[in-house]
Amino acid sequence: MAKTTVKIAKKNVFYAQSGGVTAVINASACGVIETARKNKDKIGKVYAGRNGIIGALSEELIDTGKEPARAIAALRHTPSGAFGSCRYKLKGLAENRAEYERLIEVFEAHNIGYFFYNGGGDSADTCLKISQLSKTLGYPIQAIHIPKTVDNDLPITDNCPGFGSVAKYVAVSIREAAFDVASMAKTSTKIFVLEVMGRHAGWIAAAGGLAAENEGDAPQIILFPEVVFNERKFLARVKESVNKYGCCAIVVSEGVRDSKGRFLAESGTRDAFGHVQLGGVALVVAQMIQEKLGYKHHWAVADYLQRAARHIASKTDVEQAYAVGKAAVEMALAGKNAVMPAIKRTSNKPYRWKIVEARLAKVANREKMMPKNYISKDGFHITQRCRGYLQPLIQGEDYPPFKNGLPQYVTLKNVAVKKKLKKSFKV
Amino acid sequence: MAKTTVKIAKKNVFYAQSGGVTAVINASACGVIETARKNKDKIGKVYAGRNGIIGALSEELIDTGKEPARAIAALRHTPSGAFGSCRYKLKGLAENRAEYERLIEVFEAHNIGYFFYNGGGDSADTCLKISQLSKTLGYPIQAIHIPKTVDNDLPITDNCPGFGSVAKYVAVSIREAAFDVASMAKTSTKIFVLEVMGRHAGWIAAAGGLAAENEGDAPQIILFPEVVFNERKFLARVKESVNKYGCCAIVVSEGVRDSKGRFLAESGTRDAFGHVQLGGVALVVAQMIQEKLGYKHHWAVADYLQRAARHIASKTDVEQAYAVGKAAVEMALAGKNAVMPAIKRTSNKPYRWKIVEARLAKVANREKMMPKNYISKDGFHITQRCRGYLQPLIQGEDYPPFKNGLPQYVTLKNVAVKKKLKKSFKV
Repeated sequence: MAKTTVKIAKKNVFYAQSGGVTAVINASACGVIETARKNKDKIGKVYAGRNGIIGALSEELIDTGKEPARAIAALRHTPSGAFGSCRYKLKGLAENRAEYERLIEVFEAHNIGYFFYNGGGDSADTCLKISQLSKTLGYPIQAIHIPKTVDNDLPITDNCPGFGSVAKYVAVSIREAAFDVASMAKTSTKIFVLEVMGRHAGWIAAAGGLAAENEGDAPQIILFPEVVFNERKFLARVKESVNKYGCCAIVVSEGVRDSKGRFLAESGTRDAFGHVQLGGVALVVAQMIQEKLGYKHHWAVADYLQRAARHIASKTDVEQAYAVGKAAVEMALAGKNAVMPAIKRTSNKPYRWKIVEARLAKVANREKMMPKNYISKDGFHITQRCRGYLQPLIQGEDYPPFKNGLPQYVTLKNVAVKKKLKKSFKV
Repeated sequence: MAKTTVKIAKKNVFYAQSGGVTAVINASACGVIETARKNKDKIGKVYAGRNGIIGALSEELIDTGKEPARAIAALRHTPSGAFGSCRYKLKGLAENRAEYERLIEVFEAHNIGYFFYNGGGDSADTCLKISQLSKTLGYPIQAIHIPKTVDNDLPITDNCPGFGSVAKYVAVSIREAAFDVASMAKTSTKIFVLEVMGRHAGWIAAAGGLAAENEGDAPQIILFPEVVFNERKFLARVKESVNKYGCCAIVVSEGVRDSKGRFLAESGTRDAFGHVQLGGVALVVAQMIQEKLGYKHHWAVADYLQRAARHIASKTDVEQAYAVGKAAVEMALAGKNAVMPAIKRTSNKPYRWKIVEARLAKVANREKMMPKNYISKDGFHITQRCRGYLQPLIQGEDYPPFKNGLPQYVTLKNVAVKKKLKKSFKV
């Protein structure tokens, strides 16, 4: 039986970003690269995949060693994926053996001994498969998964780097917009609807609830994907809010569904030609209110703005994102394989956390849903328990440097590593 | 002939906020109230209209004297209209004499000698009518208009308080989202569309152009209301951007129209001023690209978020908003009537400005459009001249205080002034 760990030698690192990017995934990259640079006696070069795992398959590697320390440091405050990301899931070994053989060819050619994959659930699965290459195909490699997802749906870890900053953006935005609509409500707009991301999990929508600190504060209503949408109850609640507070601010998750399991966004309106108008769920909800209750509305769709908003990132999130990157290298140096640095909450008030080691087999392909007791009984808001969990994650501001009124984000040179293989590979 | 100015006596102030609110209109209110408080020997109480001019008509006045200095100071960093705004336009004297007579009744009952109206073009018109009350109905009052509008379409003044902060929000947001889409473009989203406000004027859309500092920088395309939308040319430009840079980030103004003068997206509803309520053009543009070019897209509608985003306000804008509020009181003390404090740019590099006096008759009902030479010849971007104008307006950050990860905005007590009139008035 092949060994699952290998003796630490001066091997190179392959690092890649995967899936939807975030405001802080580059902070994790920064943690990886800076920590590797501090351990030059034990670690060789840090190569990054151009556009994620595709960069490995196509042998398009980036030599991060060509970047000055200042550029690498600037990754800490630069949103998006500096090396390019991809949406590409490796199939199982049995289904696509050629892909794994190709990876080994590339890794071997470039003396890769460490594989760091920075992503969400799908990426954890990919990383797990790579971690088994020593066992399955005899190529010695240590694969470590670095958690990242705004959806906050990875198990074991207290939260997922990327989420805290989206949470902060959403809470800040709904608070600001709700102040606006409250000013306008007397003669004009009474309803404001903000659509947020999160897929099947209501974590991001729940974060909007943090803005409501006192009775009557906005948002008055949150629509979760976990709660079946009930038009009658919803409209009654909107009316109640308008009667009580003069207005109503609503956070709606993109993943909200009706009792038949259809996305509300799909049930959209039709244009003059009878075509279904595909659009945001915010629009659907706002129009429903207009039609049924006659209130004037405004709606916003934050989309990429929410996950790219580095200017209002959570300091806690930035620190944790850096820490998991740093820990990944330290785990590699400690000879670990098939693990993920996870965040463990050691105290709630004051919030304290540390990095622990999670076994990748327990992370991959498991979605962490919001606990039921995080949603209030009526289904329209968060509970105190949820607030206690979320509150620390948006703590602190970590403003990027500004010049000429604009945040200064780094664009790396991304110098290509010379290809060593003759064969190309069709991805 | 009645005098158009009155002798300065210890009269009270009526201050009201009008039209769409902004991230900094409360900074103007702060300037008014703090300056009045410094001149207690000459100025009586500062009353604010609850929900704008409606508060005057319905005798719903707020006594700002009941607010501690700390709360008033906090207005400087609080977005929205602290006293409520309204969309309500006074008709001409001949058309609705009863309204003017009612205003005089209320003003007389509360010893109002100064009328400060904080708004855009429509409000300037209202303010002008009030300024003529001494002449037309024999009631001595000094009316001073305080400029505010995110649409930046008031004449004479270098820019309109409120605009600079929206400009900064839009430039920051498109830069951040464009970094995101560039990371995703290889296997996923290639197009990002951000819809912004601005009605018939492209000022806000133009501000997005500030993010593009170097060749190829996002946004690659801006769609202005001043440029007739040409689908063929637009799609060709999108394709060119994707071929050249791998992706395309687009800022689209809500007011973009086709060759027949129709809004690309028209929701059909109208506000109290008869303006069409716009929104949803991002979706139209994104779907057009998907259908015709097949690129995967994401789109965002910033809506109220852009004008409420006090967390990323322009320091220059905040300072100017405060300054026009302060100057309004100073002009009142100098016996002025029918004027507006305007911002005058005295130097471009470095940016220097001062407050000057503009005659209200020259402000009301005139829209300042973008100069033609602010839009590039191809119609898809801004010129260097435009950049030179806009650049100073987004300078500097002025972060609000944060607590528990959230900006701390003030909600005033808004204590009602006891009504003195027996009659109510139907607005």
